[in-house]
Amino acid sequence: MRGDGRQYDETRAVKITPNYIKHAEGSVLIEVGDTKVICTATIEEKVPPFMKGQGRGWITAEYSMLPRATQVRNQRESAKGKVGGRTMEIQRLIGRALRSVINLEALGERTIMLDCDVIQADGGTRTTSITGSFVALCYAIHKLMQNQKLSKSPITDYLASVSVGIVKNRTCLDLNYEEDSQAKVDMNVVMTGQGKFVEVQGTGEDSPFSRDELNELLAAAETGIQAMITKQKETLGPIVSVVGAEANAGSK
Amino acid sequence: MRGDGRQYDETRAVKITPNYIKHAEGSVLIEVGDTKVICTATIEEKVPPFMKGQGRGWITAEYSMLPRATQVRNQRESAKGKVGGRTMEIQRLIGRALRSVINLEALGERTIMLDCDVIQADGGTRTTSITGSFVALCYAIHKLMQNQKLSKSPITDYLASVSVGIVKNRTCLDLNYEEDSQAKVDMNVVMTGQGKFVEVQGTGEDSPFSRDELNELLAAAETGIQAMITKQKETLGPIVSVVGAEANAGSK
Amino acid sequence: MRGDGRQYDETRAVKITPNYIKHAEGSVLIEVGDTKVICTATIEEKVPPFMKGQGRGWITAEYSMLPRATQVRNQRESAKGKVGGRTMEIQRLIGRALRSVINLEALGERTIMLDCDVIQADGGTRTTSITGSFVALCYAIHKLMQNQKLSKSPITDYLASVSVGIVKNRTCLDLNYEEDSQAKVDMNVVMTGQGKFVEVQGTGEDSPFSRDELNELLAAAETGIQAMITKQKETLGPIVSVVGAEANAGSK
Amino acid sequence: MRGDGRQYDETRAVKITPNYIKHAEGSVLIEVGDTKVICTATIEEKVPPFMKGQGRGWITAEYSMLPRATQVRNQRESAKGKVGGRTMEIQRLIGRALRSVINLEALGERTIMLDCDVIQADGGTRTTSITGSFVALCYAIHKLMQNQKLSKSPITDYLASVSVGIVKNRTCLDLNYEEDSQAKVDMNVVMTGQGKFVEVQGTGEDSPFSRDELNELLAAAETGIQAMITKQKETLGPIVSVVGAEANAGSK
Amino acid sequence: MRGDGRQYDETRAVKITPNYIKHAEGSVLIEVGDTKVICTATIEEKVPPFMKGQGRGWITAEYSMLPRATQVRNQRESAKGKVGGRTMEIQRLIGRALRSVINLEALGERTIMLDCDVIQADGGTRTTSITGSFVALCYAIHKLMQNQKLSKSPITDYLASVSVGIVKNRTCLDLNYEEDSQAKVDMNVVMTGQGKFVEVQGTGEDSPFSRDELNELLAAAETGIQAMITKQKETLGPIVSVVGAEANAGSK
Amino acid sequence: MRGDGRQYDETRAVKITPNYIKHAEGSVLIEVGDTKVICTATIEEKVPPFMKGQGRGWITAEYSMLPRATQVRNQRESAKGKVGGRTMEIQRLIGRALRSVINLEALGERTIMLDCDVIQADGGTRTTSITGSFVALCYAIHKLMQNQKLSKSPITDYLASVSVGIVKNRTCLDLNYEEDSQAKVDMNVVMTGQGKFVEVQGTGEDSPFSRDELNELLAAAETGIQAMITKQKETLGPIVSVVGAEANAGSK
Repeated sequence: MRGDGRQYDETRAVKITPNYIKHAEGSVLIEVGDTKVICTATIEEKVPPFMKGQGRGWITAEYSMLPRATQVRNQRESAKGKVGGRTMEIQRLIGRALRSVINLEALGERTIMLDCDVIQADGGTRTTSITGSFVALCYAIHKLMQNQKLSKSPITDYLASVSVGIVKNRTCLDLNYEEDSQAKVDMNVVMTGQGKFVEVQGTGEDSPFSRDELNELLAAAETGIQAMITKQKETLGPIVSVVGAEANAGSK
Repeated sequence: MRGDGRQYDETRAVKITPNYIKHAEGSVLIEVGDTKVICTATIEEKVPPFMKGQGRGWITAEYSMLPRATQVRNQRESAKGKVGGRTMEIQRLIGRALRSVINLEALGERTIMLDCDVIQADGGTRTTSITGSFVALCYAIHKLMQNQKLSKSPITDYLASVSVGIVKNRTCLDLNYEEDSQAKVDMNVVMTGQGKFVEVQGTGEDSPFSRDELNELLAAAETGIQAMITKQKETLGPIVSVVGAEANAGSK
Repeated sequence: MRGDGRQYDETRAVKITPNYIKHAEGSVLIEVGDTKVICTATIEEKVPPFMKGQGRGWITAEYSMLPRATQVRNQRESAKGKVGGRTMEIQRLIGRALRSVINLEALGERTIMLDCDVIQADGGTRTTSITGSFVALCYAIHKLMQNQKLSKSPITDYLASVSVGIVKNRTCLDLNYEEDSQAKVDMNVVMTGQGKFVEVQGTGEDSPFSRDELNELLAAAETGIQAMITKQKETLGPIVSVVGAEANAGSK
Repeated sequence: MRGDGRQYDETRAVKITPNYIKHAEGSVLIEVGDTKVICTATIEEKVPPFMKGQGRGWITAEYSMLPRATQVRNQRESAKGKVGGRTMEIQRLIGRALRSVINLEALGERTIMLDCDVIQADGGTRTTSITGSFVALCYAIHKLMQNQKLSKSPITDYLASVSVGIVKNRTCLDLNYEEDSQAKVDMNVVMTGQGKFVEVQGTGEDSPFSRDELNELLAAAETGIQAMITKQKETLGPIVSVVGAEANAGSK
Repeated sequence: MRGDGRQYDETRAVKITPNYIKHAEGSVLIEVGDTKVICTATIEEKVPPFMKGQGRGWITAEYSMLPRATQVRNQRESAKGKVGGRTMEIQRLIGRALRSVINLEALGERTIMLDCDVIQADGGTRTTSITGSFVALCYAIHKLMQNQKLSKSPITDYLASVSVGIVKNRTCLDLNYEEDSQAKVDMNVVMTGQGKFVEVQGTGEDSPFSRDELNELLAAAETGIQAMITKQKETLGPIVSVVGAEANAGSK
Repeated sequence: MRGDGRQYDETRAVKITPNYIKHAEGSVLIEVGDTKVICTATIEEKVPPFMKGQGRGWITAEYSMLPRATQVRNQRESAKGKVGGRTMEIQRLIGRALRSVINLEALGERTIMLDCDVIQADGGTRTTSITGSFVALCYAIHKLMQNQKLSKSPITDYLASVSVGIVKNRTCLDLNYEEDSQAKVDMNVVMTGQGKFVEVQGTGEDSPFSRDELNELLAAAETGIQAMITKQKETLGPIVSVVGAEANAGSK
């Protein structure tokens, strides 16, 4: 058993509170154990300059942590005057992941901006941001359909993410901060409801890993991601049909 | 009566949830109507370079809004690469206000940093930040006393803040966003539990105001601030004694 | 009596030299004691993007100090790569104050930019900047009228500013640097020729203040501001009529 | 066959010119097809502040492209005033990858900085940078040993990297720019001489991928990486022993 | 004759007002025609990090223009967030020029910072800054000697600067703005009292120039510089001896 | 004889490799001794905003050094977040120099951007950049003519640059790094094929220089520049006619 009493292939408790911020077109507070992220979706009726006139939409993301989301306070990036490498890497990942389940042509020439603000961090903030912002995105798309700006949803499948790692020689699912800081191998996986990979990012800085270890990690990730998608469906409830019927039928 | 059904001299509903962020030495979620701010207090066992070796502590503050705290999304200051004038003005105000009720010698050579992050905005975010961060500061001081780093509290009095203004020719207490955008005169007042002024910032950009109007505004502010201080005492409950006994006796 | 021989309710010597910079549409060198500020007004025949097409003009301001305006040299903000919080707070104040006595519709879609550059500082640089830039603004408006770009002046009233404070338990008018650094309460007041308040910014960081003290400070400020407005009228001389006839009649 | 006549599992021609820059402690010009990168290794006899006094060394990297390395000129990051997200992501990857085959304790309290400057780009610039900078690092370690600053090499294994992807439904090894821009799935793999994974970064933004596809991609990567390591050994020639004897024996 | 009535080899009227800024260790307002520059010298009892412990001092300079020094308002460099290329070029030139007549060993481990702030510009701002800041530097050195921090002046010679150029095919001395904008060849020359060149910067962007033309330009510059040095001596008056006796004897 | 065996009036070995970067419209690798610079020319079919609609083209330049081009590694300007003064001075010089031999009207409304990236530095990087980028520019113009975007070349003359200096009391041509760091006087000269001066930048920070010394330096520079132009002609070979026939006839 693990430090917090979980099985090796068990995620932490997941709670998704929808419509958390009244001004946003879509929003959730997602809690995965003690990691808490506010995800909001903002619709803008325009696309970035490099995409103008192509009849396609755009999905992008920004990520930040409150200074005291962590055990030791972090200086604000606004005070430093620049966005750090880790932040950029994460927000690029979130945007790329979400775009993989959106038909940008069907979205039309508009942008949906996902803001992921970590208010409390305990490991897995990037994967939690992806899982939560997918739900916020669903609410925003639902609003576009209600307002008759879209007749058909551009969302092609569910999308969620978890971290996995090798901690004390055991493959563990959904690492908390303490586990993460001891992990020899650390991997973030993003998958669709259909069980396909969107992102696989594994790193063995402290200890390179074998093909067999990789396979075990991916299997654990798949388990965790299906659990997250189940939670997403429960949260969406009456608006679950914004995710393509096929996806609802087909997700494992 | 006002747009949201309030009396002219009535504040919105106030709710203060203490210990909201597990890592911080002190923290609250403060809600004044639909304005919601997370205030955390971080203790650092050092002071800024310009204060070294003087045997005195320091209190400072930072303020920020999540991009979608507002009706229209605001660009992040980290993405712009600089902190804007409004933000700087507000964080200077918060720090200055809190320092007025702290005996910096009694605090010793340490810094307490207050972070005020607005997660939802509906008017009065700077005054709400002051009222909330005073409570977060009390929890941090309490922790220092529990850990025997301080034997006596350096907090000399309560401190809270409200906005007042002249809207449609009526003096109104605690303006929401809609009222604020119609106000001819807008004033932020910070007062102590003893009823003394710490900051008076009134501006009549759209319409200069008379001495009589100023007096009415200050009277309304006093009412509101006493209501806020009552809420602070309720929240502090068992640890209310971190605010000097004299202050607890004497506050009106 | 005060350190420099003044009465408690006496301002320092005031001197305003108009047309100090040949290129600017309006300019003065204003000296209040040893505080010296060059104020220039620049007319631009356009408004900021957020105001386009509304038929209204805009007044804005920038403030800076030469590095050696002060006893200890200050690093240039251009070298630091950013404008500091104090500077932003001051330039926002100057712009807001001047706009209160301008009819922006009557100004038409143009911007007047006031640049306040402190060449020598001895306390009261922000209030001196307001008093001086009002005069520079009058010259710029006069030029627009001479060039028949405006048929009627948009200036509705006089505007000036002074600092007041409580120093060694005495209410003092127009603090110099030495007094300012000892003041327990510090207040900047901006008033119109008609005697109405445009800005009241009082702060008692070191010592909260009572309603009675506030009233005394405001009375002293009123005396000082009327003295400044008298100087402004003397300087304007033949072009005094750019300030509305009513204002000239009515100012106390 | 592919557009440039290669087999699907064939890398482009690889050429590594050692000692390319006379001032650097280690340097190569590495050419993989038309992609050309100058990699230099700089030894500094100190570590970053956060590592001081721990008796361990540090390896870090910076990456940049000349403005006209690409078909369309890119604005310099120095002119933009900030390092972009893609650059940060790449330089973090290079540093992390190299650290995985270095015993930081054995390196001692010194930093080796790898600079990877792309002078001509045709796909695979990040993987080429890793493969080249490993060789530059070997030369720098060799120099430390020659100068008797190190008695034993801290390099534990070979390290190289290639890209693989799915282009027109075929798994391809070592994508050039044209292939890269058509790839549905894109993966960068870093492996050691012993055949273990250090980094696996696969992304299916345009088309999620299955476990079988992932396995095929990893197999192709392994082939390519062994080819790169063969080239590294040829280049190192007489100094090949800076890579641990075990690694030289054991690499496949 | 020239547009403003001058002879081709005649400078504009020069006026140097010493002790213009009360806080600075040395200061002048220098006026050359309508070009007006405030030059202040600030003494700091330390040297930049790269010079520590060498027993030598340092002279450096900063240059700036007030936004409305020019016909069209320039945006502040603080607002842009960076110092422009022209400014950097000029301030490097001023520092380098002044250092050529200072014995840095004799100055001791201290820095003198010259700030040149152009309050009104009409051509020749960089040359005027050099001529003026030499005088401010003399006052600062005089102060060090009065305070017995220096027993012997480190100033080895006079130093002044003028611009020359070819305008409408005539060699002209000390160009004003109108002439400068029509000049085919433009040259800034810095010379010592002994008649030696410190800087020669000639540029023929619009029209390359011959050796004969160069010689004529240098002759005109020499005339102008001697006139400037005469003015410097008049200004220094009683403290003229801070410039080495030899220099006072020897300057032409 | 000099440290590296050269005569005082002898340049180092010069090698110019054309078409060094495949993507650029013009490019060379220029080597002058151990100084190596990649110069690329990029054609953009537009001009900067301030030149729009005037029917004239623009030539501009950027300059940078790889971090390890020098003996001690330099921090990247992108990492510092700003371009330094030395870089700005050099890139302004390169652009200005090249524009002196281009008929901007004949170029038409397009910009040619020259990028000079120093990959190895051993003195004279700015002069080498000018000499090399002139050749890159010729190739870019040739391409415009081949593509029938220009019927006539806008290049009016050859252009090259060398450094000269006084080292150990001897006038030396083309200083290497070691000589440069010992030089009392340092001068960069840019000349046309017709033998006219475009830029003369001499500085005697450590030791002012006389008119006679200046004349000797200019004579040495002329020798060196003619040698550089001979090399440029050899490199251009078949496309030498992009430089005006007159220039080819007339250059000395």
